[in-house]
Amino acid sequence: MSEQFTLYFYKASPFSHKVELALVEANAPYKAHQIDLFNKPEWFPKVNPVGKVPAVTYGGPSVDPEDPSPLSTKLAESNVILEFLADLYPDSGLLPKDPVLRAKVRFFINATAKHIEDPWFPFIRGREPYENVLKGIEFIQGLLEEGSDFAVGDHYTIADACIAPHLARLKTVTEHDIGKFPVGMGYKLGEELKAPKFAKFMRYAQRALERPSLKQTYDEEFVITMFKKIFAERVQ
Amino acid sequence: MSEQFTLYFYKASPFSHKVELALVEANAPYKAHQIDLFNKPEWFPKVNPVGKVPAVTYGGPSVDPEDPSPLSTKLAESNVILEFLADLYPDSGLLPKDPVLRAKVRFFINATAKHIEDPWFPFIRGREPYENVLKGIEFIQGLLEEGSDFAVGDHYTIADACIAPHLARLKTVTEHDIGKFPVGMGYKLGEELKAPKFAKFMRYAQRALERPSLKQTYDEEFVITMFKKIFAERVQ
Repeated sequence: MSEQFTLYFYKASPFSHKVELALVEANAPYKAHQIDLFNKPEWFPKVNPVGKVPAVTYGGPSVDPEDPSPLSTKLAESNVILEFLADLYPDSGLLPKDPVLRAKVRFFINATAKHIEDPWFPFIRGREPYENVLKGIEFIQGLLEEGSDFAVGDHYTIADACIAPHLARLKTVTEHDIGKFPVGMGYKLGEELKAPKFAKFMRYAQRALERPSLKQTYDEEFVITMFKKIFAERVQ
Repeated sequence: MSEQFTLYFYKASPFSHKVELALVEANAPYKAHQIDLFNKPEWFPKVNPVGKVPAVTYGGPSVDPEDPSPLSTKLAESNVILEFLADLYPDSGLLPKDPVLRAKVRFFINATAKHIEDPWFPFIRGREPYENVLKGIEFIQGLLEEGSDFAVGDHYTIADACIAPHLARLKTVTEHDIGKFPVGMGYKLGEELKAPKFAKFMRYAQRALERPSLKQTYDEEFVITMFKKIFAERVQ
């Protein structure tokens, strides 16, 4: 791989975090450039017209990330970029070779969107109760194999990279009770997750958080500070 | 490919239709078995515990579709199955070989979910106005290349298979004004789409509907009858 790869990310965003994890796990060379989503630079639409992270420039000349070249390919959408990395690094194990296992990885990614992301954001924004988060976690738990460190099969894949950023933020939110939800609801969700019925999920989450790639890419202090700012006004 | 492949589908469902299109385009051997979603057979959870189509059994012994074998792999989720078919038939062109083009196909599939599927269902269910559908179509149009028969590149891919079932139903709904929306809104959406600003999208849609694989797999009479039944009660 000799093409340049620049990732535009924001430390608090679980979506750009997915891509960082996959890059680190694939041992891929890349440049990373943080975008302050609350004060976006005026040149950023040249990278992603809709202004979101993650966004990637791939190929073209090696340039200053703040002066993106029109000659590079621009990519967006975290799960699309995860697949792109698996294609660029076919021997990384980010996707298995076997079609059935690949389908299982994609089913897991699909389920993460539907059963983790869909209930999570309304919960932290104080619009939906944590019960929906628990239901989603139950579904995901049903996909996990007891005792395995990985979401699918016996290797780290883009399924793990897809869910791990949410697991990190779940821990932070439940341990620090930060969100727009009524005071105490974050702690309460954390308590519920200690029940034996969630043991398999929690063991997987624990191992995911211990992984060096996660430790290297998760800045919990930054997330705590940001979330406190974003969610300063709480619902009752 | 010698493994058996059985698709469980429902003629009115755009989601199982995606998979049928990809199978036909890949010239893949398969068995197809229709599931009446309004009167599901009691054995169907053995194929898909959540009771949806498309669902696939892959491999294992060749059995009666109504007596699925525990030895086959069970797959669900239309976009996951599309990728599975592209993996099973790498020379079908369902996905290009180039990683950047593959990413573009996936971005298009992602955009179809967000910009076509997300506004479409609330519209036909009479919950949201057609303006959201038009906005989504504008986004998709922005991804299309003028004059190309295909969503991405110069070959039929799973991006085409993903959107074509929606294009077929868009035509049916706007020509027959069938939906839960107030009387006339289907016709009105059809009129709006005749504006010059949607010309590129409409040309792509027209060519997609003329494709033999689409004609072979779309039973418009069935869809009209079903939609009239489902949407019998209209909002005012």
